[in-house]
Amino acid sequence: MAKEKKLVEQITSMKEDFAQWYTDVVKKAELIDYSSVKGCMIIKPAGYAIWENIQHELDRRFKETGVENVYLPMFIPESLLEKEKDHVEGFAPEVAWVTMGGLQPLQERLCVRPTSETLFCDFYKNDIHSYRDLPKVYNQWCSVVRWEKETRPFLRSREFLWQEGHTAHATAEEARERTIQMLNVYADFCEEVLAMPVIRGQKTDKEKFAGAEATFTIEALMHDGKALQSGTSHDFGDGFARAFEIQYTDKENQLQYVHQTSWGLSTRLIGGVIMVHGDDSGLVLPPRIAPVQVMIVPIRQDAEGVLDKAKELCETLKSVSRVKIDDSEKSPGYKFAEQEMRGIPLRLELGPKDIEAGRCILVRRDNGEKIETPLAEVSDVVERLLIQIQKEMFERAKAHRDSHISDAKDLEELRRIAEDKAGFIRGMWCGETACEEKIKEELAVTSRCMPFTDQERISETCVCCGKPAKKLIYWGKAY
Amino acid sequence: MAKEKKLVEQITSMKEDFAQWYTDVVKKAELIDYSSVKGCMIIKPAGYAIWENIQHELDRRFKETGVENVYLPMFIPESLLEKEKDHVEGFAPEVAWVTMGGLQPLQERLCVRPTSETLFCDFYKNDIHSYRDLPKVYNQWCSVVRWEKETRPFLRSREFLWQEGHTAHATAEEARERTIQMLNVYADFCEEVLAMPVIRGQKTDKEKFAGAEATFTIEALMHDGKALQSGTSHDFGDGFARAFEIQYTDKENQLQYVHQTSWGLSTRLIGGVIMVHGDDSGLVLPPRIAPVQVMIVPIRQDAEGVLDKAKELCETLKSVSRVKIDDSEKSPGYKFAEQEMRGIPLRLELGPKDIEAGRCILVRRDNGEKIETPLAEVSDVVERLLIQIQKEMFERAKAHRDSHISDAKDLEELRRIAEDKAGFIRGMWCGETACEEKIKEELAVTSRCMPFTDQERISETCVCCGKPAKKLIYWGKAY
Repeated sequence: MAKEKKLVEQITSMKEDFAQWYTDVVKKAELIDYSSVKGCMIIKPAGYAIWENIQHELDRRFKETGVENVYLPMFIPESLLEKEKDHVEGFAPEVAWVTMGGLQPLQERLCVRPTSETLFCDFYKNDIHSYRDLPKVYNQWCSVVRWEKETRPFLRSREFLWQEGHTAHATAEEARERTIQMLNVYADFCEEVLAMPVIRGQKTDKEKFAGAEATFTIEALMHDGKALQSGTSHDFGDGFARAFEIQYTDKENQLQYVHQTSWGLSTRLIGGVIMVHGDDSGLVLPPRIAPVQVMIVPIRQDAEGVLDKAKELCETLKSVSRVKIDDSEKSPGYKFAEQEMRGIPLRLELGPKDIEAGRCILVRRDNGEKIETPLAEVSDVVERLLIQIQKEMFERAKAHRDSHISDAKDLEELRRIAEDKAGFIRGMWCGETACEEKIKEELAVTSRCMPFTDQERISETCVCCGKPAKKLIYWGKAY
Repeated sequence: MAKEKKLVEQITSMKEDFAQWYTDVVKKAELIDYSSVKGCMIIKPAGYAIWENIQHELDRRFKETGVENVYLPMFIPESLLEKEKDHVEGFAPEVAWVTMGGLQPLQERLCVRPTSETLFCDFYKNDIHSYRDLPKVYNQWCSVVRWEKETRPFLRSREFLWQEGHTAHATAEEARERTIQMLNVYADFCEEVLAMPVIRGQKTDKEKFAGAEATFTIEALMHDGKALQSGTSHDFGDGFARAFEIQYTDKENQLQYVHQTSWGLSTRLIGGVIMVHGDDSGLVLPPRIAPVQVMIVPIRQDAEGVLDKAKELCETLKSVSRVKIDDSEKSPGYKFAEQEMRGIPLRLELGPKDIEAGRCILVRRDNGEKIETPLAEVSDVVERLLIQIQKEMFERAKAHRDSHISDAKDLEELRRIAEDKAGFIRGMWCGETACEEKIKEELAVTSRCMPFTDQERISETCVCCGKPAKKLIYWGKAY
């Protein structure tokens, strides 16, 4: 039984070493394996099934807003990448270059897409002629490559999976509206499906996307108090359109530049789910994203009638949940530990005594609560519990997040909080990049965003230089 | 109205120039656009929606057989690609090489995956220990790259989308069973969903996959009489396992090599749908794969009540079909032509007179038939028609295919048929590669497959050398 032992061995505790805890969970919940390709990861079935659920739910929400899916090439000719000055400066240092095709050197080298603005621009330039062709609201699900030096599973890898939306509009107003609309789709998705509260806001100029006029972001707080940028939406204005000459004829027969947006969300979000909800026993999945929501564990499964009854329950529960039976030869205790590591929201225990008493035991993964349930009511109870767990997981994450937001009025206070307390720090800002850079350099916190909803003035002066303040900023350490 | 005119301009007729007809359809049905990346294509919304339907249906069928999805890196280190001798010989001449990461040359160059056997082997080597870990039945949806010199939309491009399944089994028998099982999943999918009859069979040694023990294929016949290899399934035996040292401990505690399979189906199949069902007015989509099955075209849509009634019908039809209204400002005639090009299976015309008479007109894309239908019965009629169209499209394609199969007893007959008549040619074969090569060289037809089901002996001697025959082969020109 050497193998069993290895599988259930302890996960490093969060408090002891959060980074090691994270790596342990990722590995022991069998989400990820390392590959022979440095910096690239293998997403295993348990991890990929979460991504499929994310895709399914997000794709549905996209399509409700009129998004259409397309697929563009994974290669970008160097000359195309170079067309927008800020963009190439931002991305050229971290792309992978294809220089040989078959046995021949290429005439022009191709980068593997780190993001596809330039390809979409090239496409739109040919595809858009008149106002009748607008808007274009396209998206693609694909992988992208960024040659990172330090990598971590899900959070930062040289190749990752994502979706990237790219739109073109007749007016600046419509482009800005779409930018905000998609940020809200992301935020609602994170809060409703991943039970992960986010702060919606705008990035400072220093932190915005290479080539964007404005970048909007959702920022979540991890269990260790670090922020995770969980999705971004960019308004390009007509910057790319001018660089790529994407023009259309308006109703008055005048040539106009289009206005563009892009927005992306990636497998990094799975890292967020782990770090917001996980505990020292492993992964904890919110029901709505869990590939398996209920795992039935027969107790004394060789006893007469147990497996049959378990299968009957499984059939019954299929109408209200994603349910499976673990009828492998492992011991119940081993199965419990394994399912805890994997974060399955509900465990259903059923043994001969339970059957005799006409009940089963439901065990919640998120808080360990055991609920004795009459077999006749099990569907209703499971349905209700899954909703309740989802809701309570969100509330717990929100309470944790809210208790890790502090306010700072000047640099000393900001410094003290940054050193003593993990979490977001709210502080006013004068609008000068110099102050932002000074804070980053001295305190190792970065500006996460200028929030949409709580732009209250917590002081009149910049937290750094003391000059009149313009904006509230959430500062924090980040992944 | 210059723009309208351009969109409805004639598609080259099939008889005049089949290759040009194909290119016209692909472009005018707005499935594909060319990109600035030579040999790579842009899949536009109408094309990608077909692929999404293929994915959805195939993925469901896979999962019913126990397949789990994963994602492996897109890069393969050169040393890994080289581990299986036949495999590297088959693929090395046509891969793209990444040699720079960021600003640094790589220590070892990486190829962009042309297929992922080597990566899965490397993964399985670490992931499989005991018989309890078997079978592994994994699949991934991704894009792959092969540096083709001549490219054509869908049929052959430097990057294409596909799925690749990779499995590992304890025994040779189980691996062979899985190989055939997945070939049958492909075949059933093609026939039931794409209405595309296929011949199931085995490739000769000459035509099998680089590194496989046996390759199985489904071969479809296009309208011009050329064959399209539409999906393949490979049995690797333990060849890769020996090259990569993938071993497991069996129940008797003995080390054994695993037995592996792989199977793939790609966007090339969309090219098959076009060439099996299309006509001189454009694309013709089988209902089960059509992103839009019914398009409602209001006639005199500005007349009172027309658009409202059309919307009401649209709502009604949603329960039995994927339905849309075209209420754009274009003329009805223009809309008709556009929807014909796009291959939408049913058109529903509805004008003021129709409403007065309590009816609408349904028009079948596949045969042009007009069906006057009482509004009260429209759901039933549409539901029935979609099934009927699907069935008749398959029967028509099968009749065409069957009428393009000829038998040849000797080389002269084979030559005459190959020159005179498009289609499959059945001929017996002695089993020698020399004969296969001679036929390919002299007659420009290749062996498509040795069929499973009709291994009758149409003669006792090889069609080429006259020696005793072993196998029946379908010969043909192919894409």
